[in-house]
Amino acid sequence: MATTPVKVYGPPISTAVSRVLACLLEKGVDYQLISVNMSKGEHKKPDYLKIQPFGQVPAFQDEDISLFESRAICRYICNKYADQGNKGLYGTNPLAKASIDQWLEAEGQSFSPPSSTLVFQLAFAPRMKLKQDQGVIRQNEEKLKKVLDVYENRLGESRFLAGDEFSLADLSHLPNGHYLVNATDRGELFTSRNNVGRWWTEISTRDSWEKVVEMQKPTAN
Amino acid sequence: MATTPVKVYGPPISTAVSRVLACLLEKGVDYQLISVNMSKGEHKKPDYLKIQPFGQVPAFQDEDISLFESRAICRYICNKYADQGNKGLYGTNPLAKASIDQWLEAEGQSFSPPSSTLVFQLAFAPRMKLKQDQGVIRQNEEKLKKVLDVYENRLGESRFLAGDEFSLADLSHLPNGHYLVNATDRGELFTSRNNVGRWWTEISTRDSWEKVVEMQKPTAN
Repeated sequence: MATTPVKVYGPPISTAVSRVLACLLEKGVDYQLISVNMSKGEHKKPDYLKIQPFGQVPAFQDEDISLFESRAICRYICNKYADQGNKGLYGTNPLAKASIDQWLEAEGQSFSPPSSTLVFQLAFAPRMKLKQDQGVIRQNEEKLKKVLDVYENRLGESRFLAGDEFSLADLSHLPNGHYLVNATDRGELFTSRNNVGRWWTEISTRDSWEKVVEMQKPTAN
Repeated sequence: MATTPVKVYGPPISTAVSRVLACLLEKGVDYQLISVNMSKGEHKKPDYLKIQPFGQVPAFQDEDISLFESRAICRYICNKYADQGNKGLYGTNPLAKASIDQWLEAEGQSFSPPSSTLVFQLAFAPRMKLKQDQGVIRQNEEKLKKVLDVYENRLGESRFLAGDEFSLADLSHLPNGHYLVNATDRGELFTSRNNVGRWWTEISTRDSWEKVVEMQKPTAN
């Protein structure tokens, strides 16, 4: 068991940071969350760039390793802490792992680009007083619909994306899915599809994710 | 050792198909390449959609598993055929694997989006008689420059992206890198950077990749 908590750098409202936090909570791994004030440009300062050369969040440290890229960090956490918490999160045999990798890549390559664009355009741009681009919104909504149609079929065959168990592949959809359903008016993209809606309710009400959502809420300080 | 060759569906000129072929050649895994005539819409037919529900290439089959997503297929090949061919391609210990996963994600999330957009705009759009979008070209060239600046620093510290050995992380850059360097006028994005240029020469002249490039050449039949 780890004695020193792992370190996660970045704010929980970041989708990539919250992906890593959800994974740590599923695995029951102790962590220390280290604030990176992005509005003050702390993610572009030399010390931070040493551990995250792209100047993005999160960065991650555990004993003698520094890592970036949220999905790579999640894979590392599952491999390193295989015997604790949710032991099946990244599969317990090679075939399960391959199926999880496949749907985790589908999330990164097919689901994430249109959903993160929609979240930015519909939820964050108005708060940041940036002009929305209706063409971009339309185009990405069409892309996301096609992806969710594939998911609808898949989730008619199996309870979760990679099989009968909740896995890293499902978890990885939570950050963008959460904003899309709760911070935009496009939640029906999920809820209007029977199997996607059923799956979304099941994965988004897990204790681990509900804790992450709590951490995303603004606090007084 | 496998007795039945694995099956790869799709044309070698596809960047995602060529990523899988390069991996199979590195690992010395026998394969059968199955043609998918995309101009005839074969990738959208029901039988094909059963193994690749997004209607993309490649699809992959080995014994009792069907997979899609090229980077997931590569991970599977390295895990399943760990003891043959290039044994270090996906690392031989957890720290090496984590570093490879990290740079493989950087390829998929940071390098691939701008480079595949540039390859499409600069190399394929003219052949397909589609209008180029100069704004998109400029925007993606700027994005790619920033990514390659990070690579330039990294490759000043280590011979390959994930460390001192050629890995899946380097391999995954070959398909888009090849078109960018050889089928557009933007090759200097690579060659003008000392370390990136040195790395590119080293990885693109491997026997495995040279064989894939041969397979991409038009044939008489």
